[in-house]
Amino acid sequence: MAKNTNIRISLPAVCFVWQIAMIILFGVFIRYNEESETRWIEHRRRKNISTNLENDFYYRYPSFQDVHVMIFVGFGFLMTFLKRYSFGGVGFNFLIAAFGIQWALLMQGWFHYLDENDGKIKIGVENLINADFCVAGCLIAYGACLGKVSPVQLMVLTLFGVTLFAVEEYIILELLHAKDPGGSMVIHTFGAYYGLTISWVLYRPMLSQSRHLQGSVYHSDVFAMIGTLFLWMYWPSFNSAIADHGDGQHRAVINTYLALAASVLTTFAISSISQKHGKLDMVHIQNATLAGGVAMGTASEFMITPYGSLIVGFCSGIISTFGYLFVTPFMEKTLKIQDTCGIHNLHAMPGVIGGIIGAITAASASESVYGQEGLINTFDFKEAVANRTVNIQGGYQAAGLFVAIAFGLVGGALVGGILKLPIWGDPADANCFDDEVPEDEDENILSRHPNMNHTRGMPDA
Amino acid sequence: MAKNTNIRISLPAVCFVWQIAMIILFGVFIRYNEESETRWIEHRRRKNISTNLENDFYYRYPSFQDVHVMIFVGFGFLMTFLKRYSFGGVGFNFLIAAFGIQWALLMQGWFHYLDENDGKIKIGVENLINADFCVAGCLIAYGACLGKVSPVQLMVLTLFGVTLFAVEEYIILELLHAKDPGGSMVIHTFGAYYGLTISWVLYRPMLSQSRHLQGSVYHSDVFAMIGTLFLWMYWPSFNSAIADHGDGQHRAVINTYLALAASVLTTFAISSISQKHGKLDMVHIQNATLAGGVAMGTASEFMITPYGSLIVGFCSGIISTFGYLFVTPFMEKTLKIQDTCGIHNLHAMPGVIGGIIGAITAASASESVYGQEGLINTFDFKEAVANRTVNIQGGYQAAGLFVAIAFGLVGGALVGGILKLPIWGDPADANCFDDEVPEDEDENILSRHPNMNHTRGMPDA
Amino acid sequence: MAKNTNIRISLPAVCFVWQIAMIILFGVFIRYNEESETRWIEHRRRKNISTNLENDFYYRYPSFQDVHVMIFVGFGFLMTFLKRYSFGGVGFNFLIAAFGIQWALLMQGWFHYLDENDGKIKIGVENLINADFCVAGCLIAYGACLGKVSPVQLMVLTLFGVTLFAVEEYIILELLHAKDPGGSMVIHTFGAYYGLTISWVLYRPMLSQSRHLQGSVYHSDVFAMIGTLFLWMYWPSFNSAIADHGDGQHRAVINTYLALAASVLTTFAISSISQKHGKLDMVHIQNATLAGGVAMGTASEFMITPYGSLIVGFCSGIISTFGYLFVTPFMEKTLKIQDTCGIHNLHAMPGVIGGIIGAITAASASESVYGQEGLINTFDFKEAVANRTVNIQGGYQAAGLFVAIAFGLVGGALVGGILKLPIWGDPADANCFDDEVPEDEDENILSRHPNMNHTRGMPDA
Repeated sequence: MAKNTNIRISLPAVCFVWQIAMIILFGVFIRYNEESETRWIEHRRRKNISTNLENDFYYRYPSFQDVHVMIFVGFGFLMTFLKRYSFGGVGFNFLIAAFGIQWALLMQGWFHYLDENDGKIKIGVENLINADFCVAGCLIAYGACLGKVSPVQLMVLTLFGVTLFAVEEYIILELLHAKDPGGSMVIHTFGAYYGLTISWVLYRPMLSQSRHLQGSVYHSDVFAMIGTLFLWMYWPSFNSAIADHGDGQHRAVINTYLALAASVLTTFAISSISQKHGKLDMVHIQNATLAGGVAMGTASEFMITPYGSLIVGFCSGIISTFGYLFVTPFMEKTLKIQDTCGIHNLHAMPGVIGGIIGAITAASASESVYGQEGLINTFDFKEAVANRTVNIQGGYQAAGLFVAIAFGLVGGALVGGILKLPIWGDPADANCFDDEVPEDEDENILSRHPNMNHTRGMPDA
Repeated sequence: MAKNTNIRISLPAVCFVWQIAMIILFGVFIRYNEESETRWIEHRRRKNISTNLENDFYYRYPSFQDVHVMIFVGFGFLMTFLKRYSFGGVGFNFLIAAFGIQWALLMQGWFHYLDENDGKIKIGVENLINADFCVAGCLIAYGACLGKVSPVQLMVLTLFGVTLFAVEEYIILELLHAKDPGGSMVIHTFGAYYGLTISWVLYRPMLSQSRHLQGSVYHSDVFAMIGTLFLWMYWPSFNSAIADHGDGQHRAVINTYLALAASVLTTFAISSISQKHGKLDMVHIQNATLAGGVAMGTASEFMITPYGSLIVGFCSGIISTFGYLFVTPFMEKTLKIQDTCGIHNLHAMPGVIGGIIGAITAASASESVYGQEGLINTFDFKEAVANRTVNIQGGYQAAGLFVAIAFGLVGGALVGGILKLPIWGDPADANCFDDEVPEDEDENILSRHPNMNHTRGMPDA
Repeated sequence: MAKNTNIRISLPAVCFVWQIAMIILFGVFIRYNEESETRWIEHRRRKNISTNLENDFYYRYPSFQDVHVMIFVGFGFLMTFLKRYSFGGVGFNFLIAAFGIQWALLMQGWFHYLDENDGKIKIGVENLINADFCVAGCLIAYGACLGKVSPVQLMVLTLFGVTLFAVEEYIILELLHAKDPGGSMVIHTFGAYYGLTISWVLYRPMLSQSRHLQGSVYHSDVFAMIGTLFLWMYWPSFNSAIADHGDGQHRAVINTYLALAASVLTTFAISSISQKHGKLDMVHIQNATLAGGVAMGTASEFMITPYGSLIVGFCSGIISTFGYLFVTPFMEKTLKIQDTCGIHNLHAMPGVIGGIIGAITAASASESVYGQEGLINTFDFKEAVANRTVNIQGGYQAAGLFVAIAFGLVGGALVGGILKLPIWGDPADANCFDDEVPEDEDENILSRHPNMNHTRGMPDA
């Protein structure tokens, strides 16, 4: 209690300073690209583009809006499950995502979209999608820290998280020329290890003081299902949003749709077998059902075949649910890693699986399956890597996975150290997972006698 | 209570066995179609398709995602209205839909999408939409049984439901060559009578033992409105998703948009007039407002005219609300049909109306209105049915309606018989409509002390 | 209490009479346009349109569905925040929007889409978007009156609101030839002043009698966040839905995306600095975060530059939050304007800002930035206004803003007078903000002893 958790100065200061910095940097660096500026009509004529529909906007905008919903409603409501931290879950997700997308446009712009002629970053709808992707990594990391950090800490976590993301993304996609349209490696693996390492550095031995708040109430679990379902439904858009036009986007949707469907069944199966009377645990339903989408992120565009996608979802649903049953408790007890949302089970493990599957699928690609042109298009065997073979590609895919893990671990350790400084207004152990709404409201949430409930059951009928 | 409701073995067993079966069958039968495989670029060249935009993906993907939301959030949250069965409503909807779409891809594939050359089913985005449609029939049936069956029973209901659906769909659309883009007959009429017959076979004379759980609480009704609104808003996508490119999809959206708007007003009117002081019943608002979309399913692509669509919505809103007021109580008392969600009012009656309207509108089509080509395109008067007249078409439309009803009644009776076997772990009468969450949580739902509060705070952590 | 609040006759009467009137007027006036009728194939050939994709449907449908979600879920759930008026908030929003879109198709049709040849209104997807836009103005006005008016009053408010909207829209867009794709002036400024003036006329001196209901409970605030986020996420679609094909829609999305992101940060900053310990107020988070989208409505298509958009969001977030802190209390105490949702802060002020920004941005446009053709396309300097300069355009933009304000004030005064008549069944002061659910349900909300409830009521106000 003695702890100073007042952020009345620090939070507004950070928000204002960083937002003003964004305005200045945007003013210096960011412009519309040729598809989003008024001279598009001239570009069209010059390039003999017959119709406005060829504007990338019409290829990507529907997927962009779906991804946007995943970032703000999907991640946001998935984190409303705590009985007294629903405001913090959805609200702080909103804050850091809104900041992160701006910083991401700059960071990714400098690495990927810089126009040599005038030194400006030219943006269009694809940049907006990539900014949302970049922020997803930080929101995953937030999941590990949910309820235990201050919004100021989250802003710092996001500032460095986006920066690290842009660098590892550049290394993996540009230098290693690995493919990762849905970000199993770049987004999920990095984001999860980044958050878990931060949570490890910020370990709270006395967190049990707020254990009675570390559960859900009935309706907070229903709110969380809103997040789960919008993530689940729109994941095909997530894995296809920046895939190749035409068959690339088309195939990525099919593969993701199937992987997700399979992981739902295995999640229900493992959850049911693990509980008395075969009841189901809402924690598993809310999270492990999504593992198939995470694991399909790297290979979404590949010819992994429909049944291959089902196998991916089948395995990742099982592994993720086992994670919630055994790995999370083990990590907390033994490794001193407190993972509020269980991101290790939903993002770390399925993300690594996705990276491995991507490497194997790439290495086993063949002209007989892809067709000569198809192989070149799918893996972009052009320019510098025109002579690369699929086996070599598989190796580079694997290398990308290690880069993602390394950035997560090292970056998380550094940022965790910064966040450990006693200046960020983080809550006392007894006040974690608490929106600290006024007392009478308080009554309303906890009803008569406050009592903790960790178990959340869905019955056999 | 003595009843064995333990599904700790049966549910996992069913999930695993069926998911593994799906993987094997997909491995044998399912492949990407030419628009979703890497050789698309070669197909394009061969067929002189000038741009990737001509890939069917870009015609149908936005509607697909809307339909996907209707299936998982729309149906799922519509079934959260019960005060203590919100987990079961949204959760089991999730489970059976995720299984059903896989089985539907196979069943519909064998009937519609089999490639003679290699005996494989070739899938693309249109198949994903059709799979979602197919599952909708089973989710409608679930609405009649909500809270009274076990997830194992639901899996069986879905296995047979999808199978029956694929057959009746083949008969109605292929053999009879009837049109039904929004599935008034194929989806709603079939699904509703399938579910109602099952519910009739599974009649529970002592269900009154759980009457105290057969209502809503304030916030569970608000959750249900999420389902209602996403169904209502995206219904134009539902009725246009697989309609003809161009004017077909365009017109289906307009007709559905208008029919839905009209049924909202008549629903509010009848609901208000039926209650003391003109109050409104949330059951009506949550359900009958959707009747216009159901009734417009068959004729959505036809030149029914905007005011025709309004008339359809006008009537179906009235009939549906009257259903909730009089037909449902009558069915329960006299016919011994316990219809938890009132699907007879939302799907059966409006579905039949939709089928009839479709038949009449088809029979009264004319070249003067449609134009010569327009008439041929709209009704696909080609190949085998090149010489069919609109009057004959009207007759076949009516025949389709009877096929849908027959499949629902006969199929429901058979499947109901199977589900009556005492091996499925269905709940005792006293435990229906109950998620059986732990006692302390229980307190939380029905909670104790009244207290009000004005201020709302989100904390610094 | 003596007051007659019974609308059992009046509400059904209004719904039936108006819906029947809609059917008749649609029958006389409304037809499909050439892109939505079966003769589209002939139009295509005649106009040498190579593909169905050139049907406007494919340019606008995804944005339309997003706008549709904003109208029904966005506005609807934003108004569920009151602890005991969640049914009324989302339910009456549903009713008046469903009526309004029909009336809007007629009113806007007569002014914009009348076919001289046959005197019919020809509709397509763009009309559906415009109808949703038109209704948005009335839903904004509803926000000021939330909980204090009867549904019958809301139907009257909507009937006149849509009528006034169509006229001011015609003057601003057609006669003044001002640009306002996202409706900062036409929708937000007009709607807000219309609602505020009505609320001023209907001032309730004794409203304090229901002050205990004029707050939220924990979960009703979470429900409201659903509305906030869907408005926030889909606002780029709102501001681009009817923008020019190609770069116009593309740029409008980028500008809106950035303005919204900036207003989130400044809203959090001001909210935090204004509260003890830097806590945050959910009222601010739910509303002021959207101000950037409102303020970007007029200039969304202009070359305002990405950093310009950030500045717009930066300022409007600050102003809107200050509005909630100081202007709303001042208006209620001094000006006798009771603004339930604070629409003055979310729509009036940001709307006016948007209009001013639009005027300035237009006046400062130049060929060097836009390109010669780009300038003509963006401002439609064709036909009658072919010789208009950007400075003159700026003047006309400013004139448009005054027209919007004038229509809001004068129209609101007139309609307010009509609504003051004692015949509309509005609630007594003590019964405001109350869904008046049956006693047992009532218990359930404020929760005392568990009890079953079958009936679920939404009140007459």
